[in-house]
Amino acid sequence: MTLREEADKIIEKSIHAVLPDTAVTRALENKEFGEGRLVLVSIGKAGWQMAKAAVDCLGDRITDGIVITKYDHVKAPIANLEMVEAGHPVPDENSFLGTQKAIDLVSDLTEKDTVLFLISGGGSALFEKPLIPAEDLTKLTKDLLASGADITEMNTIRKRMSAVKGGKFAELCKPASVYSIVLSDIIGDPLDMIASGPAYPDSSTKEDAKHIVEHYKLNLTDEMKELLEVETPKSLDNVETVINGSVRELCVAAKAACEELGYEAQVLTDCLCCEASDAGSFLASIAATHQNTSRSLAFIAGGETVVHLKGKGLGGRNQELALAGALPLSAMKDTALFSVGSDGTDGPTDAAGGYVDSETVGNGISAAEVQASLADNDAYHALQKSNGLIMTGATGTNVNDVAVLLIKR
Amino acid sequence: MTLREEADKIIEKSIHAVLPDTAVTRALENKEFGEGRLVLVSIGKAGWQMAKAAVDCLGDRITDGIVITKYDHVKAPIANLEMVEAGHPVPDENSFLGTQKAIDLVSDLTEKDTVLFLISGGGSALFEKPLIPAEDLTKLTKDLLASGADITEMNTIRKRMSAVKGGKFAELCKPASVYSIVLSDIIGDPLDMIASGPAYPDSSTKEDAKHIVEHYKLNLTDEMKELLEVETPKSLDNVETVINGSVRELCVAAKAACEELGYEAQVLTDCLCCEASDAGSFLASIAATHQNTSRSLAFIAGGETVVHLKGKGLGGRNQELALAGALPLSAMKDTALFSVGSDGTDGPTDAAGGYVDSETVGNGISAAEVQASLADNDAYHALQKSNGLIMTGATGTNVNDVAVLLIKR
Repeated sequence: MTLREEADKIIEKSIHAVLPDTAVTRALENKEFGEGRLVLVSIGKAGWQMAKAAVDCLGDRITDGIVITKYDHVKAPIANLEMVEAGHPVPDENSFLGTQKAIDLVSDLTEKDTVLFLISGGGSALFEKPLIPAEDLTKLTKDLLASGADITEMNTIRKRMSAVKGGKFAELCKPASVYSIVLSDIIGDPLDMIASGPAYPDSSTKEDAKHIVEHYKLNLTDEMKELLEVETPKSLDNVETVINGSVRELCVAAKAACEELGYEAQVLTDCLCCEASDAGSFLASIAATHQNTSRSLAFIAGGETVVHLKGKGLGGRNQELALAGALPLSAMKDTALFSVGSDGTDGPTDAAGGYVDSETVGNGISAAEVQASLADNDAYHALQKSNGLIMTGATGTNVNDVAVLLIKR
Repeated sequence: MTLREEADKIIEKSIHAVLPDTAVTRALENKEFGEGRLVLVSIGKAGWQMAKAAVDCLGDRITDGIVITKYDHVKAPIANLEMVEAGHPVPDENSFLGTQKAIDLVSDLTEKDTVLFLISGGGSALFEKPLIPAEDLTKLTKDLLASGADITEMNTIRKRMSAVKGGKFAELCKPASVYSIVLSDIIGDPLDMIASGPAYPDSSTKEDAKHIVEHYKLNLTDEMKELLEVETPKSLDNVETVINGSVRELCVAAKAACEELGYEAQVLTDCLCCEASDAGSFLASIAATHQNTSRSLAFIAGGETVVHLKGKGLGGRNQELALAGALPLSAMKDTALFSVGSDGTDGPTDAAGGYVDSETVGNGISAAEVQASLADNDAYHALQKSNGLIMTGATGTNVNDVAVLLIKR
């Protein structure tokens, strides 16, 4: 197998491990539910796939349920589940209607019953029931955005204006249990942030909220002020949460795939967040230092890098990370660096990521062309010339990126 | 011991291992020289210290010798060695005179004799005998600089205009053997680049040289053109080279020091070269991913990062690397990140580097102040506020930098 073929194999296996279906199936293996009803609520952009996988596993053990996902994301009816398509990234009437239906579904459950709650990215907009008029919420959101408040501060306020965010949906499910399976699109898996944490205890307090209102001099209605006085759940004894699809699993799967191919593999990090080209340079430095190894080595770095644009070329953070390794790798032996977005889309391109190895420079592209492409943020065309584009098509999942360094011996 | 005390201990031991004296002493342990004369030639900015260490080890086994170092770098006479101080970074008459004396010293040796050749940074300027008039060399150097030629291309030409560069000094030592101990200030230890490789086979060819002359349209005198036709040594059977002080040894010593303190330690790289703050961010990402470790872990990254200035503050690459870890580390437990320049000088400051840990933010400095300092390249003042400056004073060595991440459990 060539290094490129090995890379393609590793990419395929890594992404497969974090497909919504795989994640849900794994989380349901050997899971026992109580005697009572099993109600499914699946929210987010991967809501349909997650629900489909759950029904494939559990069949008519699922009593009834609802899927709330983005427009055009329902692929077919699923058994007895209701399908709601709604607004994203801005919630709309269908978001509110769907969410009310979900609340109705779980409102008369007993302690023998279970809510199977499937969560994926986009849930914040798709799953919402405001406790204030929609127009007031819109104005508050705009004020927050204009104030310079960060995402954590915004959520601290918004959780208090919502009937379901900040752990409140789990409270509405009581006395039933909630089994929550999460596909995480946020680095570090902050459970009270993913979909605004409808089934996770809120870590912010009403004092925090009041401090933010004061600090940014926000104009609140009397209704909002009253809501600020109501504390969010600080513990939830009816919830069990499994994060079964995240960049962590993406990295663990990449490691396993490398090991199957004979590499001694190590996950360096699953929360990479620095500049893409510098991450590529750092990984290439690791490669240079380990050239004299007698065993084949793999180093894995997952996360989501950033690109501060300097040029006007075409590319994405994964392509740029990989291309940054092309020149240093050209002085090495049988070494490859590649990076891929798990959703199959890297930047505004049709590629999922990029691949370079010790042979890239001189093979369709010169060192000077690589340097020029990096300076112009034009990794796409450089990788196209050197057969370094990774094309997967849309994968149906979204759990950030993974970069892999292979030193083959 | 506090984390900071552990850091100081690791820094002390790491730098000690790469002091010119330590490096020379280690390279001379158990080394047997032949029956004949042992002539010492020590060139470079650490020339005096290296010669002193050699004489301390070998005493009057050293027959005679010469030290060629920078002005004000001779601290005292050493036994029967001649001391020459000369121009750096631009060679002057004393460079040429000293070099001629060294050539005279080695010119009548037999195959039983050995030249102990000690090399440190700065040797390119301090050790030179041009084969063309000095004014022609100056003009050629200026033309090369103006042409846009890189350092490798410049050296390819200059080696051909020199009587000692590019392996030629080792040829002049024949039939004697040369034992060369190198203190490397260039990442990756390119032996034909350090001090322009007087005792190392030249990897460039006369064809390379002619190509460069053509490419940059250089105007050569007839004398220069003739010299281009003379090939440099491609192999040297009378030379043994030991690189005994380099960023590699700095990293290895840091690893040993971490292990003595109970850490499971790993050298990730010894040729780091990316943006300083992104290297800090990458290391902090590694720290975040390994927080749940049950064993204490250390990750070591040596090399020389760069800083692309955006602000007008005070700092250096080591301070900036460390400060970039302050915010992410504040969400972690018993974790420290520090980086230090082995020469004891980081940027235009009196500090050698910077230290941060999980307690830095909130301890004399706020998160907002850290962000502002990073944006203004003002790491020095931020670290000063949080007791994070590392002060060693000038160390007398120069083998790049080392960054260490500690996760204490």
